[in-house]
Amino acid sequence: MNEITALLFDLFVVFLAAKVAAELFERIHQPPVIGELLAGVLIGPFALGLIGTPDAGLVAAFHGDEAAAEESIKLVYHLVAELGIVVLLFFVGLETRLADILRVGGRAGLVAVVGVVIPFMLGYGLMGPLLGHPSVESIFVGAAMVATSVGITARVLRDLGVIGSTESRIILGAAVIDDILAMIILAVVAGLATTGSVSAVEVGVIAGQALLFTAFVALVGTGTVRRYGLRLGSLKMDGAPLAVSLLVMLGLAALSASIGLAAIIGAFLAGMVFAEAREHFDLEHQALPIYQFLVPFFFVFTGAQVDWRLFLDTGIMGTAAAVTILALLGKMVGCGIGVLGLGGRSAAIVGVGMAPRGEVGLIVASLGLSLGAIPSPIFSVVVIMSILTTLVVPPVLRILFAGHPGAPATDDDSESQAGLLPDL
Amino acid sequence: MNEITALLFDLFVVFLAAKVAAELFERIHQPPVIGELLAGVLIGPFALGLIGTPDAGLVAAFHGDEAAAEESIKLVYHLVAELGIVVLLFFVGLETRLADILRVGGRAGLVAVVGVVIPFMLGYGLMGPLLGHPSVESIFVGAAMVATSVGITARVLRDLGVIGSTESRIILGAAVIDDILAMIILAVVAGLATTGSVSAVEVGVIAGQALLFTAFVALVGTGTVRRYGLRLGSLKMDGAPLAVSLLVMLGLAALSASIGLAAIIGAFLAGMVFAEAREHFDLEHQALPIYQFLVPFFFVFTGAQVDWRLFLDTGIMGTAAAVTILALLGKMVGCGIGVLGLGGRSAAIVGVGMAPRGEVGLIVASLGLSLGAIPSPIFSVVVIMSILTTLVVPPVLRILFAGHPGAPATDDDSESQAGLLPDL
Repeated sequence: MNEITALLFDLFVVFLAAKVAAELFERIHQPPVIGELLAGVLIGPFALGLIGTPDAGLVAAFHGDEAAAEESIKLVYHLVAELGIVVLLFFVGLETRLADILRVGGRAGLVAVVGVVIPFMLGYGLMGPLLGHPSVESIFVGAAMVATSVGITARVLRDLGVIGSTESRIILGAAVIDDILAMIILAVVAGLATTGSVSAVEVGVIAGQALLFTAFVALVGTGTVRRYGLRLGSLKMDGAPLAVSLLVMLGLAALSASIGLAAIIGAFLAGMVFAEAREHFDLEHQALPIYQFLVPFFFVFTGAQVDWRLFLDTGIMGTAAAVTILALLGKMVGCGIGVLGLGGRSAAIVGVGMAPRGEVGLIVASLGLSLGAIPSPIFSVVVIMSILTTLVVPPVLRILFAGHPGAPATDDDSESQAGLLPDL
Repeated sequence: MNEITALLFDLFVVFLAAKVAAELFERIHQPPVIGELLAGVLIGPFALGLIGTPDAGLVAAFHGDEAAAEESIKLVYHLVAELGIVVLLFFVGLETRLADILRVGGRAGLVAVVGVVIPFMLGYGLMGPLLGHPSVESIFVGAAMVATSVGITARVLRDLGVIGSTESRIILGAAVIDDILAMIILAVVAGLATTGSVSAVEVGVIAGQALLFTAFVALVGTGTVRRYGLRLGSLKMDGAPLAVSLLVMLGLAALSASIGLAAIIGAFLAGMVFAEAREHFDLEHQALPIYQFLVPFFFVFTGAQVDWRLFLDTGIMGTAAAVTILALLGKMVGCGIGVLGLGGRSAAIVGVGMAPRGEVGLIVASLGLSLGAIPSPIFSVVVIMSILTTLVVPPVLRILFAGHPGAPATDDDSESQAGLLPDL
């Protein structure tokens, strides 16, 4: 068995786990995404270990260096997962027009800003003044609590069929702004931890670049597609409109990642830009099979990274529980304040939707760990907070949307299950 | 820029090159697949070097081991390319029913067997008796000349819209049998080179396993889908029929690779099995966007592996030209004999369609190289033969199919270009 065969087997096992879990969770009326995450935990290296072990052929390709072989498998998994989440956000973008976001722009901005400030203050306050940890440590924990990882929320909103609701628009718009803020905060804490000071000019350049990129893509991109998009039909290659939109997806994902934003922000913007031409070329319908093939890999691989044994460590779990509760409360209160005018349920939806922390929080914590700014147990606390704030979202959003105008019946509408497009 | 960002950029560059080349080649009325291959040569490490160089982040992940970082990038490219070719053959399988193949089964078998024997004899005869190379060396060259790599032919037949023709069925059926024969030959030469003898039992086991796998999947799989396939509609998960067929594709690709067959044989069989349910679930239409996204990666990455400087080496090129001509003639004559009753043009189509050698030839040659059975220049000869027999296929098949009944007009029918499905 050569190394590619072994990787194909891994992908098969991951896809099988994803689909069995999704089917099972649909049958017990639970969000399939939770099934996929748990399937990942189950088959991952910390439980059954069905994936991630390099075979002899791969180890030989690295001249017997087993660690390098494992690292290369991680790289493959990471890329496949990244493609999955990029496609997910691209797809969500396709369902979102710039005008929809601009309509809720003020609220989204408020949600993002207040939703960043309050969690930071809560995290810092808990760790520093209350628990007596050193100042740099408290700043890192606070910083790790600010950034929303919108992937899972986007998936749940799509699964529930409410991606077009006002709350969803606010969450998506706020997620873009939130990511820009998170990047600025990352630059600040990195500066603090390495040189002890922050260069205002440097932070300004980073922030300006991110804002410029986002505004340029959103405005100029949308205008271009609106004006010239239909010309895609006159290209000679097969399936040109889809091909060009996927090309822009990859390009903007890479570009936004290279200036420090998340790749999914670029992918979302690419989708939003092509939303202007989606009806004409039926882009959503065409992108859906790619979504169905690639997106599950992200959630299973994400689950596979969860070391469940952390949850058995009572020494960590106390702090972790406190940090998690504050992380949830922080977004609920902070983001809720931004949408108070829409009523309690909407505030709760936006707050919960913005609750999942993910890669940005972990990047902040990893940075702190590698710079010696935070000790290993505090890193674990951030990991647990990141997992729990993510896991809590699907069931809670489901409950909050039950009976909400525009939401589908919470019972599975079995007549639509046979079709391809139950929730477009 | 972290390592995933760099890889996303690589994928963007590859996809961009593929799409620009495809558009260009469509406009000059040439097969787009040739454009994709040449684009790969151009951006690959032997020319512009736009892809394949690990960035600092990746090298750091391998603790500064640049060679390991490069190896890991190769692994990523290889897997993405493999997914592309697996999806291609799965798709071609979806367009091919078992009954279609069985109808041409006798001819396909003959084409495969004679098409293996004659190239081997020609290759062996040239190298041994004629050019005076040692016996083991001649056997390896002969063995490297037998196996057809059907990927490019399948792509060209699809692009030409003639995948349903008798010749295409014969080629696809013969390719499956050819791959089983190639595996047996690989086992024989490996035995010869390592122990100097061949165990008939061992070869019998390998051959029996491959035959059993193919027959079991084709017959039992097809029967199962025909009888129970429609029940896929009653699964609760989103897009169940497509998901299950993709799952089987991954599983059979991995399984067939793990018993020594090519992964694409398993993928083709998976597609063929689900061809029984394709109309009901519109599987082809759904699989097409996945095809359009992933398949180009295979051809560009394949092109990127071509070291064009080999073609400047006059010392090698003489032998390479002779081996290539015999490789082409061998398949033309051998496969042509198998379909003589169908007339000269059909014989030529099948002969040319079976001409491209690919990974199996290179595997044989690599094995010979690593065992010291063949010297490095002879390895280069095989590489050049493999490249040239592949490059010759698209233009020649295009000419042979011009005006053939069932083939589309050779002029681009521009009214269908705007649509998604010009050639389904």
